[in-house]
Amino acid sequence: VEDHYQPVCLQCEAEAGEFSLVCERCGGSLGFRYDFTDIKWDDSQERSMWRYWRLLPVNSEQIVSLGEGGTPLIVSRGWRHPRVLIKDETRNPTGSQKDRPLAVAISHASRLGKNLSVVVSSGSTGISNAALASRAGMKAVIVAPRGAPDERLYPVFALGASLVEVDGEIDEIIDAVESLCRERGYYLSSTCRSSNPYQAEGAKTIAYETAEQLGNAPDWVVLPVGGGGTVAAVWRGFQDLYRLGRVSRLPRLLGVVPNEFDTLELAWKAGLKEPRQWSGLIETRPRSSILTKLAHVYPPDGQEALVAIEESHGFLLSVTDAQAVEAQQRLGKQEGIYAEPSSTAALAGLEQACELGLVKERDDVVLVITGSGHRETFVSMRSFPITKRAVDPSDIGDFLARLSNT
Amino acid sequence: VEDHYQPVCLQCEAEAGEFSLVCERCGGSLGFRYDFTDIKWDDSQERSMWRYWRLLPVNSEQIVSLGEGGTPLIVSRGWRHPRVLIKDETRNPTGSQKDRPLAVAISHASRLGKNLSVVVSSGSTGISNAALASRAGMKAVIVAPRGAPDERLYPVFALGASLVEVDGEIDEIIDAVESLCRERGYYLSSTCRSSNPYQAEGAKTIAYETAEQLGNAPDWVVLPVGGGGTVAAVWRGFQDLYRLGRVSRLPRLLGVVPNEFDTLELAWKAGLKEPRQWSGLIETRPRSSILTKLAHVYPPDGQEALVAIEESHGFLLSVTDAQAVEAQQRLGKQEGIYAEPSSTAALAGLEQACELGLVKERDDVVLVITGSGHRETFVSMRSFPITKRAVDPSDIGDFLARLSNT
Repeated sequence: VEDHYQPVCLQCEAEAGEFSLVCERCGGSLGFRYDFTDIKWDDSQERSMWRYWRLLPVNSEQIVSLGEGGTPLIVSRGWRHPRVLIKDETRNPTGSQKDRPLAVAISHASRLGKNLSVVVSSGSTGISNAALASRAGMKAVIVAPRGAPDERLYPVFALGASLVEVDGEIDEIIDAVESLCRERGYYLSSTCRSSNPYQAEGAKTIAYETAEQLGNAPDWVVLPVGGGGTVAAVWRGFQDLYRLGRVSRLPRLLGVVPNEFDTLELAWKAGLKEPRQWSGLIETRPRSSILTKLAHVYPPDGQEALVAIEESHGFLLSVTDAQAVEAQQRLGKQEGIYAEPSSTAALAGLEQACELGLVKERDDVVLVITGSGHRETFVSMRSFPITKRAVDPSDIGDFLARLSNT
Repeated sequence: VEDHYQPVCLQCEAEAGEFSLVCERCGGSLGFRYDFTDIKWDDSQERSMWRYWRLLPVNSEQIVSLGEGGTPLIVSRGWRHPRVLIKDETRNPTGSQKDRPLAVAISHASRLGKNLSVVVSSGSTGISNAALASRAGMKAVIVAPRGAPDERLYPVFALGASLVEVDGEIDEIIDAVESLCRERGYYLSSTCRSSNPYQAEGAKTIAYETAEQLGNAPDWVVLPVGGGGTVAAVWRGFQDLYRLGRVSRLPRLLGVVPNEFDTLELAWKAGLKEPRQWSGLIETRPRSSILTKLAHVYPPDGQEALVAIEESHGFLLSVTDAQAVEAQQRLGKQEGIYAEPSSTAALAGLEQACELGLVKERDDVVLVITGSGHRETFVSMRSFPITKRAVDPSDIGDFLARLSNT
């Protein structure tokens, strides 16, 4: 059976083999060529992102899956002008959208017969890697910078992964791990496109699903931006749909970054899309944010993210930690969805874009809520202490009466 | 439009009106009569439990939903004899199967025009009540016994509910709240059938979905048992399917309780199904268990649970906290699913039932994994400390080499 996809170098256009994660000829990043003359969705798949396998670099007989994707698009109860539709990615197997890219990576690793999947992560990527590697019968290794809290590491451990803590700067650690994997053939499931182009295709399915659920592209798609890979993949997904005639227009993308990790915002404002141009922009200063899933000084897929946002005639802006946690409360109270602050940052950004007049009252907006709040309860509760009332049993009635009348 | 369901008293068979949560004539618990001559599933619903609304006491025009149900049935990678299929209820909107009953309750409350939904809970029911009430635009009140940890309360707070902590015994608190709601007309979303018969119908959909996914009933359905309502509802669900000719047999039910809260196990062994017979069995002693979602000395739907298990020719047994947490690790490592110990107790119970020869190698077993591990990370990590290795960047290679070769 010939594959329905062909890896090709994005720089020199050389074709690559199935074992390569980068171009063997020039070292460039890989992308994939698909046969667009015969694209149909696969109705035989139980609802999941694998409905779209013909635009994913995975043989349909060799899918490793926990049922990722197939998440609901929920019409907001409260936000009607603009009309907001919430793409609820908290419904993925481990509670975040990272299950999509990692399911593609692990399917690829499994096909190659690898027994070890390695990532550097103390966040969502680590959890998704652990879950999907276990599902495939592979070992997962999570390399975390020293000092990551046990609350964040325990799920990875409970999913059977081996945890290794390393002293040093995160960028050094990533470089060391990537070199090792390349030299010795361990599978590297990094969610950075230049390190692993297979995973980078997974998040395209957010676009495919959204368009199918909505019947077309919305005016805006709003996403939190960390490494930059998700927003770039969603853009490629909409471009595919446009080419296929499945949407009649393209959405504008609104990317939201933490204001403590604002490299992309500075680059956006300065019109500098290439990472080598950023060094002058980036202040050397201590940074700290509870939006840990978005905390990149050097977003590895940042260039692609900026290009995508620009091509879409979109916008990029930043929010504070406090704005993200307040947005968590608003999303919860108004819509009944409990998301982590790194996700509700996107809602805070959308509200800002409305105030700026960028997003209009008549627009249709898809807000991608990327991860569940349950994974970050221990962080959120420190930022926003609980309000609770202690009463005697005999006073419950008064309490309820007051509440009912307000 | 006439309703497709009729509330009836399970004791005196009197018909009840839509505002009643108990029989106004005799005080008995209510059930529902459906028209079984015209039952078809609703293919127009996006995949969720509402596909089965014709066997739920909710008008199809008045559904309040976050997309609960429609959870995958995952073929186990590791357990093949017996063949285990995992009904992954962690995929519900708030991460547990309680979203099913609460979605029915809140739909009912919303239809009645209530503005307040009250539960006594510091667990899954509280979270589901908060999420679905917010979705309906209603206020949620969560009454929790004093001292519940903030990690467990924060999600409820982030979902916009009002939290009230009360001193006193849990049974007293429940009685006080139920009386107040009855007197003053606040909606009580308790997941106990005699307090709220509407919610009690929600978990039937676990049976409907499982049978549709599997094509028939399995040999066994394994469930953790806390209050008893879920296992009883699943049994009613399979009985419905048998009556409709959609399954050709009924499954046996295996119920699993914590050995620290073993009232139902004692009652099962003694053959005493009625709660008034249990007082002699129950030791007065301090009890403590991390299986908090199952911790009932007096399981409110215990009688129905025992009757269901007996009618199914099933079995009930208990497991220790340690067995449940070890099972969490096995489920994670082998299947890639991170569940809370109160859920993996069911896996530990299944393993025991295999050893006892109750469940045979040739059996098909559906294991219902009721809730996500992410909600209880803070508890699990105290019970099962993380194993992690700290290494220098230069030693990562050796670590990976050892791991790859083992």
